[in-house]
Amino acid sequence: MNTLNLEKLLNPSSIALIGASDKSGKVGTTIMKYLLKSTARVYPVNPKIDYIMHIPVYKDVSDISGDVDLAIVALSAANSVSAVSACSDKGIPFVIVVAGGFGETGAEGGALEGKLREIVSRGKTRILGPNSLGVFVPENDLDTVFVEHGDKALAQGGSVAFISQSGSVGVESLGLASNTGFGMRAFVGTGNKTDLTELDFIRHFGRDDKTDCLAIYVESVEGERDFLLECSEVSAKKPVLVLKAGRTPAGASAAGSHTGRLAGSDRVVNGAFKQYGIQRAFDDEELCDAALSLSMLKPASGNRVAVVTPAGGFGVMCTDYIDSQDSRAKLIMAELSGETKSRIAGNTLNFASTNNPVDLTASADNGMFTNSLDALIDDDGVDIIICVTFFAPPTIDDGLIKEIGRRVRNSSKPILVFTEYGPFTDEYLLSFYNEGVAGFPSISRVVRAARFLVERGEIIKRKGGMKKDTPVEHRELAGMVETWKSSLKVPGKPDEWETSGLFRIAGLPAQKSVLVEHEDYFLSLVENASLPGPYAVKICGSEILHKTELGGVALNVGEGELSETVGMMLRKFPGNSVIISNMITYSGTEFILGALNDFTFGPSVMAGAGGILTELYKDVAFRLAPCEHEVARGMLEELRIAPILEGYRGSSLDKEALVEILVRFSRLAAIIAGQGGQLDINPIVWSDDGWIILDAKAVL
Amino acid sequence: MNTLNLEKLLNPSSIALIGASDKSGKVGTTIMKYLLKSTARVYPVNPKIDYIMHIPVYKDVSDISGDVDLAIVALSAANSVSAVSACSDKGIPFVIVVAGGFGETGAEGGALEGKLREIVSRGKTRILGPNSLGVFVPENDLDTVFVEHGDKALAQGGSVAFISQSGSVGVESLGLASNTGFGMRAFVGTGNKTDLTELDFIRHFGRDDKTDCLAIYVESVEGERDFLLECSEVSAKKPVLVLKAGRTPAGASAAGSHTGRLAGSDRVVNGAFKQYGIQRAFDDEELCDAALSLSMLKPASGNRVAVVTPAGGFGVMCTDYIDSQDSRAKLIMAELSGETKSRIAGNTLNFASTNNPVDLTASADNGMFTNSLDALIDDDGVDIIICVTFFAPPTIDDGLIKEIGRRVRNSSKPILVFTEYGPFTDEYLLSFYNEGVAGFPSISRVVRAARFLVERGEIIKRKGGMKKDTPVEHRELAGMVETWKSSLKVPGKPDEWETSGLFRIAGLPAQKSVLVEHEDYFLSLVENASLPGPYAVKICGSEILHKTELGGVALNVGEGELSETVGMMLRKFPGNSVIISNMITYSGTEFILGALNDFTFGPSVMAGAGGILTELYKDVAFRLAPCEHEVARGMLEELRIAPILEGYRGSSLDKEALVEILVRFSRLAAIIAGQGGQLDINPIVWSDDGWIILDAKAVL
Repeated sequence: MNTLNLEKLLNPSSIALIGASDKSGKVGTTIMKYLLKSTARVYPVNPKIDYIMHIPVYKDVSDISGDVDLAIVALSAANSVSAVSACSDKGIPFVIVVAGGFGETGAEGGALEGKLREIVSRGKTRILGPNSLGVFVPENDLDTVFVEHGDKALAQGGSVAFISQSGSVGVESLGLASNTGFGMRAFVGTGNKTDLTELDFIRHFGRDDKTDCLAIYVESVEGERDFLLECSEVSAKKPVLVLKAGRTPAGASAAGSHTGRLAGSDRVVNGAFKQYGIQRAFDDEELCDAALSLSMLKPASGNRVAVVTPAGGFGVMCTDYIDSQDSRAKLIMAELSGETKSRIAGNTLNFASTNNPVDLTASADNGMFTNSLDALIDDDGVDIIICVTFFAPPTIDDGLIKEIGRRVRNSSKPILVFTEYGPFTDEYLLSFYNEGVAGFPSISRVVRAARFLVERGEIIKRKGGMKKDTPVEHRELAGMVETWKSSLKVPGKPDEWETSGLFRIAGLPAQKSVLVEHEDYFLSLVENASLPGPYAVKICGSEILHKTELGGVALNVGEGELSETVGMMLRKFPGNSVIISNMITYSGTEFILGALNDFTFGPSVMAGAGGILTELYKDVAFRLAPCEHEVARGMLEELRIAPILEGYRGSSLDKEALVEILVRFSRLAAIIAGQGGQLDINPIVWSDDGWIILDAKAVL
Repeated sequence: MNTLNLEKLLNPSSIALIGASDKSGKVGTTIMKYLLKSTARVYPVNPKIDYIMHIPVYKDVSDISGDVDLAIVALSAANSVSAVSACSDKGIPFVIVVAGGFGETGAEGGALEGKLREIVSRGKTRILGPNSLGVFVPENDLDTVFVEHGDKALAQGGSVAFISQSGSVGVESLGLASNTGFGMRAFVGTGNKTDLTELDFIRHFGRDDKTDCLAIYVESVEGERDFLLECSEVSAKKPVLVLKAGRTPAGASAAGSHTGRLAGSDRVVNGAFKQYGIQRAFDDEELCDAALSLSMLKPASGNRVAVVTPAGGFGVMCTDYIDSQDSRAKLIMAELSGETKSRIAGNTLNFASTNNPVDLTASADNGMFTNSLDALIDDDGVDIIICVTFFAPPTIDDGLIKEIGRRVRNSSKPILVFTEYGPFTDEYLLSFYNEGVAGFPSISRVVRAARFLVERGEIIKRKGGMKKDTPVEHRELAGMVETWKSSLKVPGKPDEWETSGLFRIAGLPAQKSVLVEHEDYFLSLVENASLPGPYAVKICGSEILHKTELGGVALNVGEGELSETVGMMLRKFPGNSVIISNMITYSGTEFILGALNDFTFGPSVMAGAGGILTELYKDVAFRLAPCEHEVARGMLEELRIAPILEGYRGSSLDKEALVEILVRFSRLAAIIAGQGGQLDINPIVWSDDGWIILDAKAVL
């Protein structure tokens, strides 16, 4: 897909501000003030004013004689439509519509928004918004963001492209960035996304050499799989962070009431993000912290963390958080080498601890700190370093900031800083930022930032094997599924026998069994199938619910009792058939496989711990279907039950065979769920020498 | 136990500062400056100076003619000892020793610290420290904390008593409190705790009417069970928060290297804290956030949360965090009543959402916000309210702060505030604080604070039934265990048969079985025991490891095969016996019970999901032993597998019977683990009509 050229939106030579004003408190006044700092030519437009700060004001956008690259419409919703139309007539390529009061407010506003889309369809003008917070590009001195957002760190520019659907989240993220730093390459408020969406900006900044990291806040995702594929492509080169509000079912319903559409199920979102190399944040603080570290630091090449601290307590807390379970990335405390320990011992007080966390004690000075840090940098057993810094001890002074900064720049390992200093914490964080150091004011936050760097390192490693996962066309399989569907006794309602037929088509290990429709000749069927006893005998009919309770299931039936059991069952449920299969003995663990059509992302596949505990432990992983072997393997490895597949406590389950099954299942899932159907295999178990599906359900 | 009278330490009429100075950068100078703000009479002591700011300086503490309530020794470690000795000679009741360089630095420092203890033993002087950050009591204008800690919110005083073992954690907590507020009733730095410990201060502030909340940072706990019992008693009246560094095994080893002693296993700490009504924090930010909310707000009477927001995105994030799984306390989004919804609808814009989260949209004004808040306060279905506040929208102004403050003071429900405002966030948080409102700058933090309030509400409810859990003396049981121990074939090494005998003594459901020592007459034993087949036959001997691998276990042995199997086994393992029990059929879930002697807290008991998955899911709960029914029930209810005991998916396991077993097991645990032993029952299962222990191991 072509990338839209956004040059005239993000680096305009000329800007018209429709609704320019000089009255205090007006949005048009604030934007005007900001625009005057830009190097672009600015045309204020307002029929009621002649001059703003000695600049002549145009009555109408059509009165402007020169070309205009960008128009900003700072009028009410109702008045915005005709203004945008005039911009289109003049051939202005980009218009930012600031006003809210469109689709997000109901039918009336929705109709107004429809008119905006109609103007876009004329082909001359692209719209950012409505309900957009605007754009901010420090390098180009362009700032149309009309809310106070501070400028301590922001004005310097930086390498994070921040794309926010929500105005308030955008503003507060700008605030966080300003307070203690992270540099913005650009900020874009997408608002209602009636035309331009996050996808346009992901494409743009993904290819922009001055952007090191994308941070995206979305409530609804436009373009679903396109969004994922684009993020995946970008994430091969640079980190892509997404804060997707609506991560749990209740959250999703809240997102629905906010954006007018339902968000997808959260677990599918998690799985899809993992699959496509997207790193997920859960609130704006986490998003900004992650952007800070990922834009300033190299990814971690491993997960072994070393901590150096002049305050033992914080070292211990740090260790605690590092050891905590976390789904993002596992961290471990690095084992320091003997050489490292002697280097540290040689340069510190004799009561310092040279084990990790390296506790220099409150008597440490700058030199002891940096010498220890150097030893950790040189230790091959350390992948990532957290420096706990304090400036209260008289022996440590601000010079340490520069010293750490120099090491951050020169080291191939990421080095993170935690600092707290009473009322001066923010000031110190900003000083660190100005030396190129990512600093954090709490232990939980600095360790979380480390996890993002480890997660990023893992994404980069995976990328080698990760294909652009365009749905593989399994035409042959799809054709067979169609034939199968048309053969069903009750259209759309496969019974258990038919479902196992579907699995055989897909190459899945359905249980060996025979279908008995008449009592008369069934024993020869069993004989022909070489099916040894004991047997499981089940009634088969798509309309019979609660088979077990109704006496439609007999287990452990001996060869001698088979005749009688089958006959009794056929007589009890006239018009139905009976499935005979041999009893499977298995010890150990049940797995579940599932497929559904996710509201947001479409066909998805699930794998996890099966049986009665599935819903209690929720030990499952999702990915979009179909998925290839590496993705399927990743799903299984993500489970807490994963060690069972790796010989845990003597288990002998064949992991690669289950990976193959999952891949095949995902191809079937892509077809069945793609048509709105659902599949549930629960359980699939390991029996002696192979995986076997014991129970399953298909809904088309 | 008597509470030590700390009046002269915390509210002294006269203070001697030994090591007083006027040289900039000296600790003795900083403390002198602070002391001069106090109303106490101050005696500077320093043989080398005559005057400090026109105040005459004493050569020696013995030169002071009047009584001295408190001495602060701001000298080096080496010089501190003789100074403290002089204080003791003069009869000064309390001395704060500021210097580090004692026990925490090794043997030499340890010897110095021993001398301090020797002075204490003379009975005239109590010591706070050494390595103490000092004390700070705003109401008494007493501040001996010699490090910059800000005073924006601190100087006003408040109701949190903060007790910190570590200087740096203490300082940074003071900083956090100062920046955005929480009021300190007092701060105490306990340092090395060579004499006074946290226990003395917990007792004091637990009984102090002006203290609403205790926040405690400890690395090692002194007095173990006394600490828990005291906290439990205090927590019946006011919240007790503890940050205990060393929460995971690796963390504990780090704590060991820092404090010279190993911390207890983290899961035991968690369980013990729950059992004794202590709320746990994991870093200083969390501790301060919890102290802020618990000291300013009523506990929540339930867990139903309502959110009101002018920014939909933050409402959704809030919902997400509320729905997230968290071990502290489960929160749910409140269902608003019809009346509430109409009240909100009647006072807001027509496109606002009246569902929870109540999204007022960015066009909301102060009135809409407060009217909606009032409706939520009046809704009986709401237990706790989170206000998302923003001051960027032109329709909302600072007046909202006072309006919310008034409602916080008048409402019986806790109301929390989230606010972000770019560079002004801290300022706004402080404004909220000054109106009596607990505010937080991130969604995750405000929701976490809500969990602390819900957890506190649950502790208060539980208190009714919670006895002061002094170890019940089960003398009779202890006597029987002694007899049992002395009867063991191999002293200290019970075999399986002997272990099941121990369980029978304790009233636990050991499996029905017979012990066969000779082949000759065993069938009559089986007959006499009315033991029906099929059987499990196991070799029994405390020295045989890996029974199964050696062929020492036969399962599903039919009645006809019993003779042969038993004979074969006795011949294969000469000198050992055989246990015959009937095969237990059970479907469903295995539980594990365990007992160990925790390094910190002593005899502890564990319950959880058993079987092969125990270590993968780590779905276990700990408490100290013995525990009574309510505590045991709480342990089981804490498990993720708990619904299995409540009829989940048709299960019919008897929960109360398992509670009874756990209580009995805990009494046995108190005895066995109290003597350093360990017990492991894995699994115990539900079989038809009772719980039964299938396998167990005892180590004495």
